[in-house]
Amino acid sequence: MAAGQLAWYITATALVLFMTPGVAFFYGGLARVKSMVNMMLLSLGAVGLIGVLWVLYGYNMGTVAAGEGNLIPGVLGNPFSDFGLGTLAASEDANDGLAAVAFGATFAIITVALISGAVADRAKFGSWMLFAGIWATLVYFPVQGWVWGLDADGNPAGWIAALGTNLGLSTDVIDYAGGTAVHINAGAAALALALVLGKRIGFPNVEKLGKPSSVPLVVIGASILFFGWFGFNGGAAAGDEALSGLGLITLNTLVATAAALLGWSIVDRLSKGRVTATGASSGVVAGLVAITPSCANLTPFWAIVLGLVAGAVSSLAVGLKYRWGYDDSLDVVGVHLVSGFIGTLWLGFFATDTGLFTGGNLDQLTVQFLAAVSVAVYSFVMAYIIAIVIEKTIGFRVPKDIELAGIDLRVHGEEGYALTD
Amino acid sequence: MAAGQLAWYITATALVLFMTPGVAFFYGGLARVKSMVNMMLLSLGAVGLIGVLWVLYGYNMGTVAAGEGNLIPGVLGNPFSDFGLGTLAASEDANDGLAAVAFGATFAIITVALISGAVADRAKFGSWMLFAGIWATLVYFPVQGWVWGLDADGNPAGWIAALGTNLGLSTDVIDYAGGTAVHINAGAAALALALVLGKRIGFPNVEKLGKPSSVPLVVIGASILFFGWFGFNGGAAAGDEALSGLGLITLNTLVATAAALLGWSIVDRLSKGRVTATGASSGVVAGLVAITPSCANLTPFWAIVLGLVAGAVSSLAVGLKYRWGYDDSLDVVGVHLVSGFIGTLWLGFFATDTGLFTGGNLDQLTVQFLAAVSVAVYSFVMAYIIAIVIEKTIGFRVPKDIELAGIDLRVHGEEGYALTD
Amino acid sequence: MAAGQLAWYITATALVLFMTPGVAFFYGGLARVKSMVNMMLLSLGAVGLIGVLWVLYGYNMGTVAAGEGNLIPGVLGNPFSDFGLGTLAASEDANDGLAAVAFGATFAIITVALISGAVADRAKFGSWMLFAGIWATLVYFPVQGWVWGLDADGNPAGWIAALGTNLGLSTDVIDYAGGTAVHINAGAAALALALVLGKRIGFPNVEKLGKPSSVPLVVIGASILFFGWFGFNGGAAAGDEALSGLGLITLNTLVATAAALLGWSIVDRLSKGRVTATGASSGVVAGLVAITPSCANLTPFWAIVLGLVAGAVSSLAVGLKYRWGYDDSLDVVGVHLVSGFIGTLWLGFFATDTGLFTGGNLDQLTVQFLAAVSVAVYSFVMAYIIAIVIEKTIGFRVPKDIELAGIDLRVHGEEGYALTD
Repeated sequence: MAAGQLAWYITATALVLFMTPGVAFFYGGLARVKSMVNMMLLSLGAVGLIGVLWVLYGYNMGTVAAGEGNLIPGVLGNPFSDFGLGTLAASEDANDGLAAVAFGATFAIITVALISGAVADRAKFGSWMLFAGIWATLVYFPVQGWVWGLDADGNPAGWIAALGTNLGLSTDVIDYAGGTAVHINAGAAALALALVLGKRIGFPNVEKLGKPSSVPLVVIGASILFFGWFGFNGGAAAGDEALSGLGLITLNTLVATAAALLGWSIVDRLSKGRVTATGASSGVVAGLVAITPSCANLTPFWAIVLGLVAGAVSSLAVGLKYRWGYDDSLDVVGVHLVSGFIGTLWLGFFATDTGLFTGGNLDQLTVQFLAAVSVAVYSFVMAYIIAIVIEKTIGFRVPKDIELAGIDLRVHGEEGYALTD
Repeated sequence: MAAGQLAWYITATALVLFMTPGVAFFYGGLARVKSMVNMMLLSLGAVGLIGVLWVLYGYNMGTVAAGEGNLIPGVLGNPFSDFGLGTLAASEDANDGLAAVAFGATFAIITVALISGAVADRAKFGSWMLFAGIWATLVYFPVQGWVWGLDADGNPAGWIAALGTNLGLSTDVIDYAGGTAVHINAGAAALALALVLGKRIGFPNVEKLGKPSSVPLVVIGASILFFGWFGFNGGAAAGDEALSGLGLITLNTLVATAAALLGWSIVDRLSKGRVTATGASSGVVAGLVAITPSCANLTPFWAIVLGLVAGAVSSLAVGLKYRWGYDDSLDVVGVHLVSGFIGTLWLGFFATDTGLFTGGNLDQLTVQFLAAVSVAVYSFVMAYIIAIVIEKTIGFRVPKDIELAGIDLRVHGEEGYALTD
Repeated sequence: MAAGQLAWYITATALVLFMTPGVAFFYGGLARVKSMVNMMLLSLGAVGLIGVLWVLYGYNMGTVAAGEGNLIPGVLGNPFSDFGLGTLAASEDANDGLAAVAFGATFAIITVALISGAVADRAKFGSWMLFAGIWATLVYFPVQGWVWGLDADGNPAGWIAALGTNLGLSTDVIDYAGGTAVHINAGAAALALALVLGKRIGFPNVEKLGKPSSVPLVVIGASILFFGWFGFNGGAAAGDEALSGLGLITLNTLVATAAALLGWSIVDRLSKGRVTATGASSGVVAGLVAITPSCANLTPFWAIVLGLVAGAVSSLAVGLKYRWGYDDSLDVVGVHLVSGFIGTLWLGFFATDTGLFTGGNLDQLTVQFLAAVSVAVYSFVMAYIIAIVIEKTIGFRVPKDIELAGIDLRVHGEEGYALTD
């Protein structure tokens, strides 16, 4: 890469790394005060563990092209092909290659952190860390190779990336920055965890579950996510020597998110008669999720409409947990799974040139649907199995008395605030 | 643009977008605890609404050059010339053009958000959103074209930008990053809103109005502003293939702000016997405002002196509201209008080559003064009319009982903190 | 510099400037609630004062090459050679040169701010500012020239930078981003201040000293530091037209920090039975400190091991203050001095090509040790002298009654939070 490309790529890497603390603050602020330290630690633990695992072997698992010593072409790279990346670091391509490893690390980290919102108030920290490491290894590391893996010539090599071609369709899956690999993936795993761990004591009585400990912390988290997302969506454009598409990606990221903030707030106003900062912040996240797969393939106008729809629909979807009885505590399903699906399928209708309404045929919609469902099912099933095994062996959920007394004080010996002296 | 230019331009865009949450935290921390959610929402609402309006038609309104299908050359572009920007997105210039739209969006958003500090504790959310949309449409969108609009050859086309030339003076207005278009503009509108909405109950009794809810949140806000301002002041340098001037802009932004922090704190120490974190943070903002128009046209030494003066004068100016009886609650006038004027006029004296003391004639000072006053008067009058119409029709100010009980709980049904469980 | 280089350099400058507020939040959150405003002000004061002094004369003091009008070749530049940098600003090299000044300013600022953690709860603000200005002038400004000073041909000119060559060794000191100049420097000064100011009332009774006022604020601070550190470690790579090494630096910064978070947390779990967010955050800082000197000269694998070691050892080292009786209140010594030494010496063993285990001889270890000890001793002695003179003249420590009542209310007239209205 030339300096200008690398400048942007490393900037994007720093931005995306910053997003996981953003998740910690968003979730920590939403959590009640007696479990907010635990909530932040679930994200921080992911930074530590997934960061290290990605460098040791995770990056290699996503190298799925055939003929490069990988285990299953299109599906699974060899985790031990360059353990610790010493060979890459000594290669001529080290500067670009290690930058790509770093950029990829930030995606692996945040995807795992996003899941944690489903288990607020009630997950053992050690069990979470075990889940995080296994899920990353068995799900995230290979899946991101399915979606983004390239062969030596830069052509799609992952089975999902090449799905359209292999099915004889006129177009391939579009998932520019992670609608399937990140958001549907994390959202489906969150649903599995919510089911395995069960409902919090008091659910679905919202009053008894406690209020968000800190609205400013929620807004801080959402704001960091918005800020960092410019790197999340735009980083991959660094591969092009003119950073082609980055202007469109940036504008769409901004404006779809603005629209989703409005969409969520309008629904709140119409349905509850009031606009809230947690709602506006959740709308921001929903919009960012929805524009993630589609940021490079929509006109600004359709990005605005997508944002409005994603914000409004996710706003309604977060209420489903009360009706259907799964305790997705901080709405990972309602925001990431639902808006991940919306953004991914949206391309089937409105992708520039290839959508149903823009190109006149169903091919794009077909592959988008297949990709989304494939990742959702795989992630859900694997997460469910991993979680149930942990629950049945070392236990995943804390005892009742700890949940009632507060996980922060009893498990971590640390309280969020000490505001009197 | 080459990759290196675009890398900086998009980085700057992300930085400036991050500033509006910075405003939300700065104002939210300064607000008392029972209205801090509302305070943050005034900024968040601007992100949603102004972001969308800018893309739909606002950007086009600032395209003021003659002969390009605009309504009034030098004054007003055609808002519907490319509604939703589909034509630009499909053009060869899309990558640079949409980047410029995104960068411009962040300026439009923050300018509106800045105004909200004047109406703490007492503005109806829906009325604020209406005001925000109308003021942006009638004031910000055209005014930024007056100051920064270019013709097809890249020459100044806005009537303010070309004012010096048209008056036969030896120099044109310098407003590199928005002393007039952003800060004087927002500050004058804030004064109008403060007058229309009237004083908070208890004003000017500072004790009764309540203390800043969270000093850390104030500092977080000011720090994000400082950080993001490197993009705010430096972003436009991306237009040059060598990023010429960016070194000077960056250093001046840093050092003028450092000096203003000192200037404000010294005045606090001398006048009140103590240095405060809210004072230091306000000094940071005053310094950033003052260096905004002048960052590219001062030596570092004069930037330092400017910072000291702006910090000291704004520190004194925030007391005027008590003497003159307008309730500019969070000091938008004292900081943005006053330091905006200081920074804009400072160029008349010390601009490299063209100031009174550096170039020996009054031309620079003349055009700076005319530009500053023109924008201030236009913005104040328009904001006053818009606000009074809203107040007389749907009402702008909440009822007394809500103001006393707290706007957060009564209007938004959401309290900032829930620190006991 | 080409645009791509400058884009990264200015981005890095903004990132590092943002780190000092990060220090303010990290320390402010760790401080008890009645002194957290003061704690943040110690950092903010450094932003103001050191930023201005650096531009006025500090940058010149670090220009240590012979034959350029400097006072002592290799040791001390002439502070008045270009007071206020008007000459540099008017030179052909202004764009790059002023960018370097700005980047350097952010390092000077944060180094001073780091020291302040040693004096929590008990330092007079004015005395701290005096100390900050003198220590920066006599210690930081010259020392950074010793470590990073170049001659006109770009070769090392500082006496520490050239130490290996001058001793006839096969290699020179490696301190890529400030293990000696920043962290050992600040850590040693912090130890001196802790000794001169003495123990807080109640020390070593942790209960009586109060708890961290805000764990979220601690995590916010550490997260901003992590984010900004990509600029801190990577910024200097802007000097190369291909940004060579930046991929490695970025990845090592990420992964060593992730490992240190794990290392600290594992020790906490084993020794205390629990993992905390303040521990994980401190691990982040320890990892960042350790990888600072070594980021460009380790393989990712050895960066991981370094991070684990630094996190674990710093976790144990912070307990020494209780055993040895120096009140390094917020662990500047345990984190910055200790992990600064670890990271600096680590290169003696594992530096690519030149370490004891990688190159087979002791030369690298020798110069690393000499550099680390030289800076530590110089900084400690100077800081001790400066502090003792201040203490014996105008006084450095606040009176007992103020310390007990809380420095925020009594000295600054400002409390951190007003959460009831």
